[in-house]
Amino acid sequence: MDWHGEGISVMEMSHRSKAFASIAEKTRDDLRKLMEVPETHEIMFFQGGACQQFSAMCQNLLGEGFPQGANYVTTGTWSEGAVKEAKKFCDAKEVTNNKGTKYSTVAPHTEWDIKPDASYFHFCQNETIQGFEFHDFPWEVIPEGQLVCCDMSSNFASREVDWAKFDLVYVGAQKNIGPAGLTIVILKKALFDRPARKDVVLTSHYQLFSKAANMFQNTPSCWAIYMAGLNIAYMLEQGGLAKMKERAIERSTMLYDYIDSSEGFYVNVVEKQYRSRMNVPFLVKDSDDMAKKFVAEARENGLIELSGHRSVGGCRASLYNAMTVEGVIALVEFMKGFKERNM
Amino acid sequence: MDWHGEGISVMEMSHRSKAFASIAEKTRDDLRKLMEVPETHEIMFFQGGACQQFSAMCQNLLGEGFPQGANYVTTGTWSEGAVKEAKKFCDAKEVTNNKGTKYSTVAPHTEWDIKPDASYFHFCQNETIQGFEFHDFPWEVIPEGQLVCCDMSSNFASREVDWAKFDLVYVGAQKNIGPAGLTIVILKKALFDRPARKDVVLTSHYQLFSKAANMFQNTPSCWAIYMAGLNIAYMLEQGGLAKMKERAIERSTMLYDYIDSSEGFYVNVVEKQYRSRMNVPFLVKDSDDMAKKFVAEARENGLIELSGHRSVGGCRASLYNAMTVEGVIALVEFMKGFKERNM
Repeated sequence: MDWHGEGISVMEMSHRSKAFASIAEKTRDDLRKLMEVPETHEIMFFQGGACQQFSAMCQNLLGEGFPQGANYVTTGTWSEGAVKEAKKFCDAKEVTNNKGTKYSTVAPHTEWDIKPDASYFHFCQNETIQGFEFHDFPWEVIPEGQLVCCDMSSNFASREVDWAKFDLVYVGAQKNIGPAGLTIVILKKALFDRPARKDVVLTSHYQLFSKAANMFQNTPSCWAIYMAGLNIAYMLEQGGLAKMKERAIERSTMLYDYIDSSEGFYVNVVEKQYRSRMNVPFLVKDSDDMAKKFVAEARENGLIELSGHRSVGGCRASLYNAMTVEGVIALVEFMKGFKERNM
Repeated sequence: MDWHGEGISVMEMSHRSKAFASIAEKTRDDLRKLMEVPETHEIMFFQGGACQQFSAMCQNLLGEGFPQGANYVTTGTWSEGAVKEAKKFCDAKEVTNNKGTKYSTVAPHTEWDIKPDASYFHFCQNETIQGFEFHDFPWEVIPEGQLVCCDMSSNFASREVDWAKFDLVYVGAQKNIGPAGLTIVILKKALFDRPARKDVVLTSHYQLFSKAANMFQNTPSCWAIYMAGLNIAYMLEQGGLAKMKERAIERSTMLYDYIDSSEGFYVNVVEKQYRSRMNVPFLVKDSDDMAKKFVAEARENGLIELSGHRSVGGCRASLYNAMTVEGVIALVEFMKGFKERNM
């Protein structure tokens, strides 16, 4: 209710006030530190979620004089969404699509059908709904000169990023970073000189946002920026990215190990090398009714938000940075008991 | 930290959870009640601020087969922004522009140059920066068959709306409604059947948002929706729209009366019939240095955020619904003292 003696809360502040500018600057600086973002890249705060970046990417990177095509790797719901949106703006090529396997794997990269005359190459590093994560991306497939764009919404801040490899990274904050309503865009600064499409919408315009810097192009989601700042500072205090990664591996390994040892009572269909450290979807006795029973009983035991996404059914445990190792231990214990009672 | 025994805060909830759906639904229902929105119109929650609606309007209303033109009344910074953005998408005609008067007035509507073959007619009901408000809009100028679109960001919930006259109303919430990050769009339901432009971006697509209803098309700004809901409920408790309007008139009349009686020490340049009840810009002894001194001393007296917008200078008192009558009394008392000390 009274931020640093201002007499008002952060929710009431003008986004152009000195007080708020200092909050936004600290959030950005701490994020740069946490994610080791080099000075070659700019950090910007947008609204609209990763979904808005699906069009922003096209509108900003496909200006006049650049190839009007792009490559998209489709490994789940979010990369599906990205290529669908891109088709409104350009010749968006799906280089591979493994929906037939329920996105449990991806075809070998040697079989990908890549458009040579494209402006950029897009992939989603972690598919929230399918629990599919690229731990080692086959970088060699990307044709020289194509920009690399990546949706890191759901695994950002859980692993290091080799920034030299990325031109555009976008992140809906509501997983590891802060409350919903904030989108982080990290762009190679050299791209600010690249002319955007004429129909780039004001609220997606990278160049304008960068120029406005802490003053912002339009009113940002102030509270979400403030909360993200507190959470980023907390992650730094906890030991930073190395610690976040270590815990992510610990949590997810524990859960996958138990699932794999459950004699088929619980099943995660994703090929091991692509299993997400953040999102663990699983079937319960291969039955939707059993999954519903699982979710209901888990809830009675204080274990919530375990439904799979409505588009795929089953269950899903999201093990974001805020989840404790103890939380996963409690989940596994509950899963053991539920199996005993329902074998 | 624990919303209704869920064990989590609203900031942590899934936007698809029952708990959050009930929050969003109540916010929407209460807003319908507060603003007396009839069932002919749908209420939707977007991100990106009013600025994003500048393009959303074009992308949704200018589909194939409809006239590719629109009329724009320019009365200040925000309507300038709207027409500038619209020019990316269509033949956007400024029917009048009174920048030459520093937007202190608008040309008589009989002189407006209106495009007959346009899809819609746009105006901004209250210009936040210039303090210009349409109290009586000259409805007779709008050609039959043209939709009426209106930016009500900064005076929404301070006066009644004659909904039969409006097809699209959009509102950046961060004035009278709630924290920044939420945009309210109220659309005549019949328009959901109107085909959008093919390049309508996912995060601005009215039809998709309406279909998704409380489940949302993409992750919304959950916390801002929750806070808006609390504030809307509070406004209803206080006596609703009639009370909000009564207080807005009381606050603004008090301040304008004092300014006009200050023998030119303080000056508001806006023609009386267009003076805003929400935003009162004023010059101090016609001097930017004096305005700066005023802002600094006011701050020492606990009266904050009194700088004019960086684009126009001077001072500005924003008298939104959250401002008390006592707050305005304190401001006027301070203004009197400042005048005595600096005449």
